[in-house]
Amino acid sequence: MTRPSAVPPPVTAVLDASSRWLPARLGEVEDLLREQAVGYGELLGADVATTLAAGGKRLRPLLVLLCAGPAGGEGAVRAAAAIELVHMATLVHDDVLDDAPLRRGQPTISASAGRSRATAVGDLLFARAFALLAAHDDARAVALLTAASLSLAEGELAQRQDAFDIGISEQRYLDRCRLKTATLFECACLLGRDLPALGAFGVQIGLAFQLLDDVLDVAGPPERTGKARGTDLLDGTVTLPLIAAAGADLAIREADLRDLDAAAAERLCDRIAATGALDRVRSRALGMVAAAKAQLRDDACDAEQRQLLGLVADGVVQRYS
Amino acid sequence: MTRPSAVPPPVTAVLDASSRWLPARLGEVEDLLREQAVGYGELLGADVATTLAAGGKRLRPLLVLLCAGPAGGEGAVRAAAAIELVHMATLVHDDVLDDAPLRRGQPTISASAGRSRATAVGDLLFARAFALLAAHDDARAVALLTAASLSLAEGELAQRQDAFDIGISEQRYLDRCRLKTATLFECACLLGRDLPALGAFGVQIGLAFQLLDDVLDVAGPPERTGKARGTDLLDGTVTLPLIAAAGADLAIREADLRDLDAAAAERLCDRIAATGALDRVRSRALGMVAAAKAQLRDDACDAEQRQLLGLVADGVVQRYS
Repeated sequence: MTRPSAVPPPVTAVLDASSRWLPARLGEVEDLLREQAVGYGELLGADVATTLAAGGKRLRPLLVLLCAGPAGGEGAVRAAAAIELVHMATLVHDDVLDDAPLRRGQPTISASAGRSRATAVGDLLFARAFALLAAHDDARAVALLTAASLSLAEGELAQRQDAFDIGISEQRYLDRCRLKTATLFECACLLGRDLPALGAFGVQIGLAFQLLDDVLDVAGPPERTGKARGTDLLDGTVTLPLIAAAGADLAIREADLRDLDAAAAERLCDRIAATGALDRVRSRALGMVAAAKAQLRDDACDAEQRQLLGLVADGVVQRYS
Repeated sequence: MTRPSAVPPPVTAVLDASSRWLPARLGEVEDLLREQAVGYGELLGADVATTLAAGGKRLRPLLVLLCAGPAGGEGAVRAAAAIELVHMATLVHDDVLDDAPLRRGQPTISASAGRSRATAVGDLLFARAFALLAAHDDARAVALLTAASLSLAEGELAQRQDAFDIGISEQRYLDRCRLKTATLFECACLLGRDLPALGAFGVQIGLAFQLLDDVLDVAGPPERTGKARGTDLLDGTVTLPLIAAAGADLAIREADLRDLDAAAAERLCDRIAATGALDRVRSRALGMVAAAKAQLRDDACDAEQRQLLGLVADGVVQRYS
């Protein structure tokens, strides 16, 4: 249950299918993100600029812009940049917490500049996000994004509290996914347009995103995920594949994650896969994506929005198929 | 240049001198702070509640309430609670960065629950501050507090960038004090009332506060400060007493802070004191407090506010006399 970083690449498909407003708007988001790194001079050195430039696929900004639609305007662009800044802040802090050496193939700030600098850079990105919205009196956006930020921190705390406990319930796991991942997707959609159906769409694809990410940690292969199989297990992070497998296999239920080394983690991954748990979790995620798409009714969006948001939802799945 | 934590105790003097509105208002701030820790159930365990309850003297909330005056109302109470939440978030993160075992005589969250939990708790306190303001559409307050939060992160980064560099200029040091300490005092005053004179008052007492804190790190004694003399030197944090002493003593100028151990740091403290630098820095701080008080003209505040803000300014000095 590493917070997903390498987002699925629906952006290309979405851009190909969209009319011209969307690429223009995404370009404005990039400009705005770049602006956040200037004005600090040498102070921030390359850290913030590198983090912002390193990219990722801007999935959350894309959701903001798509839900806002062509009429979204500057408010949507600011909200899209702000949510990406919050997302990046959490990634920078996650890398501090996990002592992660690499993120998206690049050394993390934590690894290259030290945990202290990384903690401060994360704080700065976080503050920058709210400053961007506050400077334009976007009170609704500030309220939405602060609430989502609270969820992220709560989810992080919940995950650490649950560490190494194979006995946690499925519901507890899903609650954590919601706090740590789905709420920010929901927030992205609601920042675009304040409509419960769009929020529900965001929640469902966010949950599916996290479930499939957790499958990938067990299934690998490493050359695709960029990390060893069982990384979550080694961290003591109990995810749905493990919970589902523990229900079917007593030896898994009685495993002690604190005793694992890398080889034992790989063996546990094999054992989880042998129970069929991965397919069951994948099915649930696909059900969530279908439920997400079912939210895109006529009263929630127009035909182009429905098509493009559908492509985003499909992109979440394609990453793992 | 540890960010000051044990704030001076002007509160008692101020409360004794004030009419009844102030104690009532401060009580409301405490209630609001306590509310921030509930609703998370076991999730946050004792961490947030302990941090909030551990106190400190609520100097920043006091400034908000005093500058707002008796007519301040609920907006002032919320702003006072929010700025204290931001202050606490930075303290929790600072303790992570510094691996600090104790804060106000209690084990830090970082020491008792681990750096990871502490990073997440800090993030949560930070988000809670903005959520509190955003929930009531306090757009001006959000803008002020986000700007101040940016400064705090920039100051933290600047301090780490300057680490171990005895050659930094006095101006650079003062800029850092402004970012790391004075801006939050300024913000407190402006949250109370949007008046440049009050902001300038906050800046000056904030700067004085940091200068005197840095004198204390060299002067000790440890039984009063609760930490060994020369803690800043050992961290590589170059402060005004050292900069001033280096101008007068070639051996200090050529010292390498990376080579220091605790005994050598104490000897360097003695050597700094021998140059008379501590008295010179103290004098500058006293000048700043006088400049702060000079801002409290008739058009900035009434007679009671002038008296009480003056007591706060005096309290900053008294801690060190």
